[in-house]
Amino acid sequence: MAEPKLKAVLLNCTLKRSPDVSNTEALLDIIIGNFDQLNVESEKVRVIDHYVPEGVETDLGKVNGKQDEWPKIYQKLLDADILVMGTPIWFGVRGSIAQKVIERLDGVYADTNDVGQFPMYNKVAGVAVTGNEDGAHDACATTLYNLGHLGFSVPPNADTYWVGEAGPGPSFIEAGGKDHPYTKRTAKWAAHNLVYLARILKANPIPPDGNTVEK
Amino acid sequence: MAEPKLKAVLLNCTLKRSPDVSNTEALLDIIIGNFDQLNVESEKVRVIDHYVPEGVETDLGKVNGKQDEWPKIYQKLLDADILVMGTPIWFGVRGSIAQKVIERLDGVYADTNDVGQFPMYNKVAGVAVTGNEDGAHDACATTLYNLGHLGFSVPPNADTYWVGEAGPGPSFIEAGGKDHPYTKRTAKWAAHNLVYLARILKANPIPPDGNTVEK
Amino acid sequence: MAEPKLKAVLLNCTLKRSPDVSNTEALLDIIIGNFDQLNVESEKVRVIDHYVPEGVETDLGKVNGKQDEWPKIYQKLLDADILVMGTPIWFGVRGSIAQKVIERLDGVYADTNDVGQFPMYNKVAGVAVTGNEDGAHDACATTLYNLGHLGFSVPPNADTYWVGEAGPGPSFIEAGGKDHPYTKRTAKWAAHNLVYLARILKANPIPPDGNTVEK
Amino acid sequence: MAEPKLKAVLLNCTLKRSPDVSNTEALLDIIIGNFDQLNVESEKVRVIDHYVPEGVETDLGKVNGKQDEWPKIYQKLLDADILVMGTPIWFGVRGSIAQKVIERLDGVYADTNDVGQFPMYNKVAGVAVTGNEDGAHDACATTLYNLGHLGFSVPPNADTYWVGEAGPGPSFIEAGGKDHPYTKRTAKWAAHNLVYLARILKANPIPPDGNTVEK
Repeated sequence: MAEPKLKAVLLNCTLKRSPDVSNTEALLDIIIGNFDQLNVESEKVRVIDHYVPEGVETDLGKVNGKQDEWPKIYQKLLDADILVMGTPIWFGVRGSIAQKVIERLDGVYADTNDVGQFPMYNKVAGVAVTGNEDGAHDACATTLYNLGHLGFSVPPNADTYWVGEAGPGPSFIEAGGKDHPYTKRTAKWAAHNLVYLARILKANPIPPDGNTVEK
Repeated sequence: MAEPKLKAVLLNCTLKRSPDVSNTEALLDIIIGNFDQLNVESEKVRVIDHYVPEGVETDLGKVNGKQDEWPKIYQKLLDADILVMGTPIWFGVRGSIAQKVIERLDGVYADTNDVGQFPMYNKVAGVAVTGNEDGAHDACATTLYNLGHLGFSVPPNADTYWVGEAGPGPSFIEAGGKDHPYTKRTAKWAAHNLVYLARILKANPIPPDGNTVEK
Repeated sequence: MAEPKLKAVLLNCTLKRSPDVSNTEALLDIIIGNFDQLNVESEKVRVIDHYVPEGVETDLGKVNGKQDEWPKIYQKLLDADILVMGTPIWFGVRGSIAQKVIERLDGVYADTNDVGQFPMYNKVAGVAVTGNEDGAHDACATTLYNLGHLGFSVPPNADTYWVGEAGPGPSFIEAGGKDHPYTKRTAKWAAHNLVYLARILKANPIPPDGNTVEK
Repeated sequence: MAEPKLKAVLLNCTLKRSPDVSNTEALLDIIIGNFDQLNVESEKVRVIDHYVPEGVETDLGKVNGKQDEWPKIYQKLLDADILVMGTPIWFGVRGSIAQKVIERLDGVYADTNDVGQFPMYNKVAGVAVTGNEDGAHDACATTLYNLGHLGFSVPPNADTYWVGEAGPGPSFIEAGGKDHPYTKRTAKWAAHNLVYLARILKANPIPPDGNTVEK
């Protein structure tokens, strides 16, 4: 009997608007290649192409006359088993779009799943980071920790990143980062471990024991 | 039939030598209280009371004429299902003993388990942090991320911390932090989720598929 | 003979749109009170009330059909002697608006002053941070370091912050943070030291020796 | 008339004990080369070669039967105009020796200079960081911010670092980092700006106005 097909959402938090080429997307595509082999359905969302105002609630309604589009993205997260946050590094930390996404996820804390836990319980999270240089550890650590607070579980080696040497230099695509041994290997590890942990949490959901939200 | 009893090791990375009273230990004891109720065996190790020189290998042998005691602590980690790192905050980040412990764990990368993964696979990790003020997020994020790289899995809400208001002020014990609602609740959540994830990973170990170490 | 009047720009990077009350602004006002006594002219800019798209250049032109308003804010920085970045903490780090502002300042690297240094040379920078809890050190450290890379000098004790105890709780204004001894004292220290260093750098500008930009 | 000769202390916080070759020292030597040209007297201290127990006071007396050697290093800092902290990156952040040094500097807060400020007022600080990969921004930002709290001033571009590409790889010396354009340039910038700011602060010390320690 086939295992149920898992769903992954990959949020690309690049600062570049379509149709500009995104290095972060190129790294996410490597993860998707691994997900494909593991029978996981992947959906990419390039956040900057949507109208997502800054804020800390799930639905901000109309802001400056335009409808907040975050609720549609949030629904994709609710429907998924796996979240991968992809972000560029700017000034040594995750980019502003990634930070904005995390802030919008503050709305999670106002919500619960059927058994009274945060709605992200039993989902897993990973991170993919690209930058010319330096800052991947900080971007990964901050993001995985934030997602853990929101209810996601994090398997071992749940991140992949590529950075170049100190100082300005070529970006992921130009530098041929997709063939960088460390980045390739960690993308594979992350994908495999995310999928495995998602499967066993789906089969064995965390019981609402000692971890439900007090109203 | 009884479930197998899980073992937890709690590393207290306080800067205070015994018999000085450690605030971090007081927070770890709250987690242990939860572990007790969940039928988990706990062992505390106060690292500063042992001779653990700085370095990045598992066994440094004799350093300045004294035998490295880290290998004995490392063995406890290998034998445990759950690791909780407890650290004070100093200058906004985890203390130097916690940093030293993480550095000594670099030796993990030279080792594998029976199936070729990092030896910390199928173990889970959490963090407990105390400080007069500010820095818990950084200490938790850095530590959980490092432990994830080393092979540990991290359940949701795997950390608990107590900090006071901005600036100098009383520490955890003096401030009555053990009764602080957020700290109590998060200690309970962390304990329950660590135990649950440890149990399901013990029953369903991560297969050596896409995540083994290439020699 | 009177000293020349210094100018300070205080960027409020709150996520709240006017006319909502901003806690970060309330802390910036304490600094302004100090600046007033020191004969410094202050101008506050609430960034979220302006159209500042994400990007890494000084002038993005029209984005989604609207004119980028960052160049006008950037001009204020060029005209000022002192910059104070004010930011809330979200998820343990500086907010997304602060991150966006720093990213837009990447345009600085494409520019030089009259003698070939980064245009922010001979200006000084400070930081003001508010949050319900935890994260001020990270927000301050990241921001001051980034500003130092961009050419700002940083005097001792150049930051002030207020945070409450661990977990959710009242914000700066509600908690009476303006009377918090540490926050009051550090706001005063920061203001005095920023003004003094700005004055001596104005009188003794850093010579273009060993620090000019190679084209 | 000659300007007074400035003194710089460079603390090498490598984890390697003498006579092992230290990559961090190799980077510090580049800064010293610049200091030599600027008529600054340099003294290197390799902290791990001294007995410096963990703690947060200036003088711990005898610890485990041996005399604390930190007070002698601390005296060098008091006698210097410039401090450069050199640290390797381990697990994405500054190493444990650098963290320990910062913790020992907590003793500064119990002390004042002649006019009632923290004793590090009118001194300047910079940072030099080496690592196989990733983490320099975090190590620099944390360290410069901590030193600023302790009373040091920070000129623009006060840091230099070298890191390689993502993942394991050669270290600074092996990789020929001393010829890396970014690292060379930033070492020069840092040296020049540290020396200039130290000179003008020596000539124009920060007055004890609004920044003295209340007892």
